[in-house]
Amino acid sequence: MQFSSELLESAVNAFSRLPGIGRKTALRLVLHLLRQDEGDVKNFSEAISRARTDIRFCNRCFNISDTETCSICTNSMRRKEMICVVENIRDVIAIESTQQYNGTYHVLGGIISPLDGIGPDQLTIEALIGRVREENTEELIFALSPTIQGDTTIYYIQKKLADLPIRVTTIARGIAFGGELEYADEMTLARSLQNRLPIEKYVTR
Amino acid sequence: MQFSSELLESAVNAFSRLPGIGRKTALRLVLHLLRQDEGDVKNFSEAISRARTDIRFCNRCFNISDTETCSICTNSMRRKEMICVVENIRDVIAIESTQQYNGTYHVLGGIISPLDGIGPDQLTIEALIGRVREENTEELIFALSPTIQGDTTIYYIQKKLADLPIRVTTIARGIAFGGELEYADEMTLARSLQNRLPIEKYVTR
Repeated sequence: MQFSSELLESAVNAFSRLPGIGRKTALRLVLHLLRQDEGDVKNFSEAISRARTDIRFCNRCFNISDTETCSICTNSMRRKEMICVVENIRDVIAIESTQQYNGTYHVLGGIISPLDGIGPDQLTIEALIGRVREENTEELIFALSPTIQGDTTIYYIQKKLADLPIRVTTIARGIAFGGELEYADEMTLARSLQNRLPIEKYVTR
Repeated sequence: MQFSSELLESAVNAFSRLPGIGRKTALRLVLHLLRQDEGDVKNFSEAISRARTDIRFCNRCFNISDTETCSICTNSMRRKEMICVVENIRDVIAIESTQQYNGTYHVLGGIISPLDGIGPDQLTIEALIGRVREENTEELIFALSPTIQGDTTIYYIQKKLADLPIRVTTIARGIAFGGELEYADEMTLARSLQNRLPIEKYVTR
């Protein structure tokens, strides 16, 4: 692509460095911004640079936060004795969006995956174990990816906490709502058979 | 989506206001930026706000420009007596990328489309006519969309310049390279038959 404006070119380059955005899409986005009010574009650019400068991680659960401890951990209405262990911030947002969970979180920052060079030390597992030992934790809910790596991570953490009288659970695996049985993979189908529920426990909303 | 950080939320909102970017994509982009160097994110945000503040339109051809007159118009190697009339800046970039055109441009800012409320006065047609009359224009090449609106625009401009001894052409319509005949629409196929070329004039590169 040949530009007659260096300013345009550098804005397009900036956008096209984002994941999943090619040069044509980047150009479309920049031309869109050029048509917006100057104030709106200023707000856009400030929102981004402020997010990068000011967002930090909660010192307790490693969730994204504007303050030292995140708004979920400091919320007195949330049950502190319940910790949901997730891989990343997106998972926290996904679970919060269901409005079904009233406990706190712990963001691991990934899962154990030796092939990718990710061991327990690269994750916040030490901090989680410290938390469980210090706080009055009653239940640890694992909401990790249903993969070998996820299962390994659960196993590793569980062993480290084997001496404590806490309840350890994992979110249910099964056929998704709207999912068709014939297209489900064998692993999911097998697990959903093993973990079948009495019909009176089957909750629909 | 429920966020535990207002800074994150406002950055996601900013991104999701862009065309074609939903909230999930916006979140992915913001989380990507949070992982980048602070300097890189600052450059990103500055490139965008500077583009909006400092980019202007060339006073001659209405192309996007960093200066009063764009780098194509001020380039002494370009043939000023040839003007390629296009709808928007994206078309200039597309034609420049072919590296086959050595003249100048005129960006109309749209095409005549009464249904969308766009008449000749909303476009830079007056300026184009002034340019052709003042400058020593020899050829006007129309590179507009092959639609009724595009044809109307060509017809309108051509009539306004009927008294001048200039050559008026339009880029060739036809079956695209790699396009399959059976999937071409009738209009394109009909035009490509009407405007068939002697085989010795058929240039491939």
